[in-house]
Amino acid sequence: MTTYFEGVDAVKYEGTETNNPFAFRYYNKDQVVLGKTMAEHLRMAVCYWHSFCWDGADPFGQGTFERSWHNASSVQEATDIKMDVAFEFFAKLGLPYYCFHDVDVAGHLETPDELSNELARAVDRLQQKQDETGVKLLWGTANLFSHRRYMGGGLTNPDPEVTATAIRQVRECMDATFKLGGENYVLWGGREGYDTLLNTRLSTELDNFGALLNKVVEYKHKIGFKGKILIEPKPHEPTYHQYDFDTATVFGFLQRYGLEKEVHVNIEPNHATLAGHSFAHEIATAVSLGVMGSIDINSGNYQNGWDTDQFNVDIKDITLALIELLPSGGLDTGGFNFDAKVRRQSSDAVDLFHGHIGGADCLARALLAAADIIEKGEIEAFKANRYKGWEGDLGKMILSKETSLADIADHVKTEGINGKHNSGRQEYLENLINLSIK
Amino acid sequence: MTTYFEGVDAVKYEGTETNNPFAFRYYNKDQVVLGKTMAEHLRMAVCYWHSFCWDGADPFGQGTFERSWHNASSVQEATDIKMDVAFEFFAKLGLPYYCFHDVDVAGHLETPDELSNELARAVDRLQQKQDETGVKLLWGTANLFSHRRYMGGGLTNPDPEVTATAIRQVRECMDATFKLGGENYVLWGGREGYDTLLNTRLSTELDNFGALLNKVVEYKHKIGFKGKILIEPKPHEPTYHQYDFDTATVFGFLQRYGLEKEVHVNIEPNHATLAGHSFAHEIATAVSLGVMGSIDINSGNYQNGWDTDQFNVDIKDITLALIELLPSGGLDTGGFNFDAKVRRQSSDAVDLFHGHIGGADCLARALLAAADIIEKGEIEAFKANRYKGWEGDLGKMILSKETSLADIADHVKTEGINGKHNSGRQEYLENLINLSIK
Amino acid sequence: MTTYFEGVDAVKYEGTETNNPFAFRYYNKDQVVLGKTMAEHLRMAVCYWHSFCWDGADPFGQGTFERSWHNASSVQEATDIKMDVAFEFFAKLGLPYYCFHDVDVAGHLETPDELSNELARAVDRLQQKQDETGVKLLWGTANLFSHRRYMGGGLTNPDPEVTATAIRQVRECMDATFKLGGENYVLWGGREGYDTLLNTRLSTELDNFGALLNKVVEYKHKIGFKGKILIEPKPHEPTYHQYDFDTATVFGFLQRYGLEKEVHVNIEPNHATLAGHSFAHEIATAVSLGVMGSIDINSGNYQNGWDTDQFNVDIKDITLALIELLPSGGLDTGGFNFDAKVRRQSSDAVDLFHGHIGGADCLARALLAAADIIEKGEIEAFKANRYKGWEGDLGKMILSKETSLADIADHVKTEGINGKHNSGRQEYLENLINLSIK
Amino acid sequence: MTTYFEGVDAVKYEGTETNNPFAFRYYNKDQVVLGKTMAEHLRMAVCYWHSFCWDGADPFGQGTFERSWHNASSVQEATDIKMDVAFEFFAKLGLPYYCFHDVDVAGHLETPDELSNELARAVDRLQQKQDETGVKLLWGTANLFSHRRYMGGGLTNPDPEVTATAIRQVRECMDATFKLGGENYVLWGGREGYDTLLNTRLSTELDNFGALLNKVVEYKHKIGFKGKILIEPKPHEPTYHQYDFDTATVFGFLQRYGLEKEVHVNIEPNHATLAGHSFAHEIATAVSLGVMGSIDINSGNYQNGWDTDQFNVDIKDITLALIELLPSGGLDTGGFNFDAKVRRQSSDAVDLFHGHIGGADCLARALLAAADIIEKGEIEAFKANRYKGWEGDLGKMILSKETSLADIADHVKTEGINGKHNSGRQEYLENLINLSIK
Ligand SMILES: [Co+2]
Ligand SMILES: [Co+2]
Ligand SMILES: [Co+2]
Ligand SMILES: [Co+2]
Ligand SMILES: [Co+2]
Ligand SMILES: [Co+2]
Ligand SMILES: [Co+2]
Ligand SMILES: [Co+2]
Repeated sequence: MTTYFEGVDAVKYEGTETNNPFAFRYYNKDQVVLGKTMAEHLRMAVCYWHSFCWDGADPFGQGTFERSWHNASSVQEATDIKMDVAFEFFAKLGLPYYCFHDVDVAGHLETPDELSNELARAVDRLQQKQDETGVKLLWGTANLFSHRRYMGGGLTNPDPEVTATAIRQVRECMDATFKLGGENYVLWGGREGYDTLLNTRLSTELDNFGALLNKVVEYKHKIGFKGKILIEPKPHEPTYHQYDFDTATVFGFLQRYGLEKEVHVNIEPNHATLAGHSFAHEIATAVSLGVMGSIDINSGNYQNGWDTDQFNVDIKDITLALIELLPSGGLDTGGFNFDAKVRRQSSDAVDLFHGHIGGADCLARALLAAADIIEKGEIEAFKANRYKGWEGDLGKMILSKETSLADIADHVKTEGINGKHNSGRQEYLENLINLSIK
Repeated sequence: MTTYFEGVDAVKYEGTETNNPFAFRYYNKDQVVLGKTMAEHLRMAVCYWHSFCWDGADPFGQGTFERSWHNASSVQEATDIKMDVAFEFFAKLGLPYYCFHDVDVAGHLETPDELSNELARAVDRLQQKQDETGVKLLWGTANLFSHRRYMGGGLTNPDPEVTATAIRQVRECMDATFKLGGENYVLWGGREGYDTLLNTRLSTELDNFGALLNKVVEYKHKIGFKGKILIEPKPHEPTYHQYDFDTATVFGFLQRYGLEKEVHVNIEPNHATLAGHSFAHEIATAVSLGVMGSIDINSGNYQNGWDTDQFNVDIKDITLALIELLPSGGLDTGGFNFDAKVRRQSSDAVDLFHGHIGGADCLARALLAAADIIEKGEIEAFKANRYKGWEGDLGKMILSKETSLADIADHVKTEGINGKHNSGRQEYLENLINLSIK
Repeated sequence: MTTYFEGVDAVKYEGTETNNPFAFRYYNKDQVVLGKTMAEHLRMAVCYWHSFCWDGADPFGQGTFERSWHNASSVQEATDIKMDVAFEFFAKLGLPYYCFHDVDVAGHLETPDELSNELARAVDRLQQKQDETGVKLLWGTANLFSHRRYMGGGLTNPDPEVTATAIRQVRECMDATFKLGGENYVLWGGREGYDTLLNTRLSTELDNFGALLNKVVEYKHKIGFKGKILIEPKPHEPTYHQYDFDTATVFGFLQRYGLEKEVHVNIEPNHATLAGHSFAHEIATAVSLGVMGSIDINSGNYQNGWDTDQFNVDIKDITLALIELLPSGGLDTGGFNFDAKVRRQSSDAVDLFHGHIGGADCLARALLAAADIIEKGEIEAFKANRYKGWEGDLGKMILSKETSLADIADHVKTEGINGKHNSGRQEYLENLINLSIK
Repeated sequence: MTTYFEGVDAVKYEGTETNNPFAFRYYNKDQVVLGKTMAEHLRMAVCYWHSFCWDGADPFGQGTFERSWHNASSVQEATDIKMDVAFEFFAKLGLPYYCFHDVDVAGHLETPDELSNELARAVDRLQQKQDETGVKLLWGTANLFSHRRYMGGGLTNPDPEVTATAIRQVRECMDATFKLGGENYVLWGGREGYDTLLNTRLSTELDNFGALLNKVVEYKHKIGFKGKILIEPKPHEPTYHQYDFDTATVFGFLQRYGLEKEVHVNIEPNHATLAGHSFAHEIATAVSLGVMGSIDINSGNYQNGWDTDQFNVDIKDITLALIELLPSGGLDTGGFNFDAKVRRQSSDAVDLFHGHIGGADCLARALLAAADIIEKGEIEAFKANRYKGWEGDLGKMILSKETSLADIADHVKTEGINGKHNSGRQEYLENLINLSIK
């Protein structure tokens, strides 16, 4: 069997002293950290779309990658070659999972029937590839944004015919994901939002979205799918405004339609920063609201205002997210999916390895740093002391259901309470983080 | 009685042909538009803080305004002079309402007891001023962010002594607002958020905030206050992150603590844009979620990333917000409060008139434009046609509680449904807006 | 001859009372304003790329426009049909100018020879079309960013073979522009910048750019081209950083390579705002530095951080730019080129008319407002008074070449000079702008 | 002698294994890196204003620091106590330099004469403190933005009386800096810009600024000051727009007024990011343009749009800047001045140590990483190969002054040149950076 990545062997952990650019220096999958292996903590996945579907085109220029399948003579030929190469890559890279959109594996097809047929064919081949390589499916998702019919949204389209078409696609992609043993199912509503309020009924679209998401959850239970249903927040792009703006917005939406126990979020750092938040903020918010699901690990840069989906090589940024995530129990069915693409100028096949290896090592190094911080316990101890008043009499009295606003105010007055300020020690705490990154 | 604004008489409506810079050209308070007078629609208020408390200082320089009371010999003298001047201004400007923080009228005082005493004294004087001038109180609010004790928050402080002190202040300010006939009570949590997650227990702070807001609502009902309780969203500043990020976030928070029927939002355009939204988006969202309360009318500029709180002179921006607001019934107990300050270089007393007159005329002109759009009905008709499928059989079938995801998908398959795209006509609709602005 | 835009006749000025959406309400080309006709002031152009080349695809989805030529069987057939339709549109719209990239009219071709041949063929057809319709060429430009060879830049590529190829393309496009009577020649360096400094020699690239731009200017003079050479600033996108960041940066670059008298700027509002400036700022800067050239009129929206290239329907924003531009003599060889695209959801051919008609009327309305402001003279009078001290003795003494820093400082000391502050009256001046927009 | 920082001894280098939060772990001043000691490379300075003048107030609240001198009974008493404490801090911290504004050491005074007198008194005390401690002056600067007279600018004020007053202040501060052995003199034009173009003559202000900066340079030479004159770019804040927007803008301005050999830039990371650039970009630009001067080391965060001036603890960000800076020869007379403030909530005196120690260690660690990258040479080798064509015949022919645009184009045609694309290897290069950070 010919291989696409001829010069590259299976990627192995070789430690920090190696000179091999195609080796992991930090990601040692069986190394135990905080009681679990690195592989169990990180549950890394390769995404299908950025590395195998995108041809390097951007809004200002044609593709630069010229992979063999980008010029295939038919959609079927392209998807077949692409799948062979993708699994060769997954296997050589040695990460446990992958993720896909239906159209990534079935092709962009004009009619729902064609898509349906090709998806069925793809599922059979995927199953065979999974069996051969041991690579597993972290999640699947239906692409409700690329076909022109979805230009005004899928589940929130003004036209019920489009929405109905979207529903068929979701159902078939859920079936495919279930059949392939996928551990989650994702909805990213790229065009569930609006370009102008002048042609949009916001309330109608939100209500439709809520009603249909309830049907998605109901269907999941009906077919016995045990994975999580995930919504991926993003503030805008391609739309002017997307309804799933950020984690807090999604949570409000879920509650409104009775879904906050059933649906979780798939957080992406680049989407976090586009929404005006840090990656750690989105994780802390999701953990706090009980909707933490999975992570599309990548990053933007802070000078460009669109979703650049770069490999995240910011060790500290990930460390700060992990110290919010790990104490809550970590990822459960979720994982770290590399929703990242090599730059358009990184036009060689080997660049795919550089991107993923650097990304995996960065996650591993951040995991080691986060574990060090958690084990030392200095930050947690600082917080415990800072909030200890809430364990005392005054704290309990304030929060008691028996106490009214007037009771507390009267108590303040009679006791002469006059709260003081205490240093928050931000610089000291920030220094601790750097000291744990090695 | 000496007057502060000697050269300026009561501001009158004089129409567009006047040359008088101290006249309204568009705001004709008794003019009927869409069945109500302009005054009834707009319910404009002057805020106390920007025009009478701020001395023109910014983080890089001292005050430039040198109003007489900024150099008063005591807090009491300053608040008295300031109140005289403020009501002279309110009366000359002729807008129906004003708004205040407790410390605006009582002074920045070191201890809770001092503040309490001075607030009581201020309330008596305010009552007298209201009676003399006929100016009414749109809302009051407690300042839980200026005193150093609140550097880590008021209702979300890590130290219950600080939170207790804040509660006393809220209770007393609610009492004051009630006594003065205030039509709403606002909470702006300037420091209810965090500067770094490293010293913050997000979950604890949110839970405390939710518990205490419930006590605020309970107290409102207990004392018989009929106005709305309002939360003012803002994404950040002075904090790195504020919990009340935007309307959607506040709504999720309210639902989580069972308050979504009790608390509404006070939307500010400059806060909307800092959060990555248009002013119209925030209004449409609040209307859609049933939490629309009041408006702090102002604007930022799009080149500076902090809350510049300028007078909003963007007629179109307000028009776009009004066509979202007016069909829902308008402002109810809310109003348009000028939470705007003249620029630091606008250092003369007359500049206060220019800012407010321009702002009021801009609101009036936007009201006329919005009324024209609504009366013509072209945009509403376009929407009705665009969404008409949801009134039909397929639309009803999709949304029916009886129908499952699989039912819809099967229907799509058997009927051969393949949704098509239809132009959203954004440019045509945008042109209509401009045509109604005259 | 069959027509593409069957339902639309030639667009005429019909005044504000018309109900015809396909008429100008404000743009009355022969109406005299400030001594020139509207047509002479505005010199409007339609761009070829957004309306006739773009198929409605974005990074997340396929084309939505389905114009007949997007599925043509060859590049030649597509360019021919497209050219017929484009000139039908230009003629019906009735604006005097159009603009193109070489690849817009010749097609995206793989080799330099193919492009060269097709460009020659296109020039002949364009000449014929210009003769038939009377539409003129405002400017041409070579596309040095779409072909994959230009992924790392054209004139600033690390590989001289690529740069050489770019130079051939520039030369041939300059020749084509000259032959067609183009009034300017534009360079937009979409990829003249970098994605990461890690693989970039900034100094080398800037020096190469400077050297080659000198050759461009030399060539212009050699062939006798009388139009302006224009650089179009843009801060980033598609690159992480573009060398032509904004007008001030371009000016510094031009000076460094001795070109500040030879090269002017083509300002685009959406590029201005992406760079952190207002449209008016970029115009004022270009006028002040003596490099004002032409305008690519469009706008972004302030919530999305990429180049949305919308039709600019913000009358005030354009008015503020025009009051900076008109007193300097206006556009000379430049024009207002609609570098704007209808939204991806505006998928019908008629939407092209709505976009351009709204844009033209908005320019006309802004011109009327700017003329009113200039004729009233209030703002200019305010400035004259504010700066009058520089006409006096002290002002002259400070600026005299004879006076040293020490002389001035000594004079301040001996004369007891202690500068005072005076109101800048921003709100009053902002109100004047609104009053002139009708 | 009583000390202010009682619990803290002189800060020493103790290596990474220490548990002492008041020790350097990486900054070992005599350690040799790339042929110079760390101290010689980094030339660190403490700034006077953030740590000793700011009281912790922000636009929404009063001071939180309550240092002893903030409540002194007179300006003189405050400046004296503050100077004693500042030098105690400088001495204990053990960094070689400090920086000041005139008003930091003399006090904010109403009249020019008062400021002049107090500055003279301060200089004497500073000289004595410098002698006692060995701490040296990196640079001085005149504060032309805090006094209300400067609300519309100092050197660019519309009123020549204000400008004259500013000139006196600059001259006296230059004299003070010279007398104290300062190694540079800085101009930060906090209000040299505009709030609205409606009241601004941009051309006049730029011309005045250029003329006066020439006088500053002339005066420097006249008094024999050997240090550099530095301009500190910042895009906006407190102004809407500042003329010294970024390094490229300043360079264009300097060239225009013949100053590009005489004036250099003082780059601040937080100002870089507010202008839409990375820190490394500003350094690379300044090096490339020959105007690199000094660095105000700090950082913003990417979620807040104002100048937060935090201690920079981002090792990678500084590493990326250093690999641009070090190959050019490093800082010369410049230094790394900590223009950073502890957060408002870091209200204890010891927090000043945490901020500076963390900042110094971060610089040292970045220096070690940058040295490792430079010594390994992989990135430089990659670049050399990528640009090697410019050393060859084609590269030389293109750049030759003898070659015209037509010559090159003809050569391309006859030789059949058709440039190809080659991978830019961004991910591989980014991985190398992380591997050198230890
Ligand atoms: Co994603
Ligand atoms: Co993304
Ligand atoms: Co407000
Ligand atoms: Co505000
Ligand atoms: Co353009
Ligand atoms: Co553009
Ligand atoms: Co600085
Ligand atoms: Co700064």
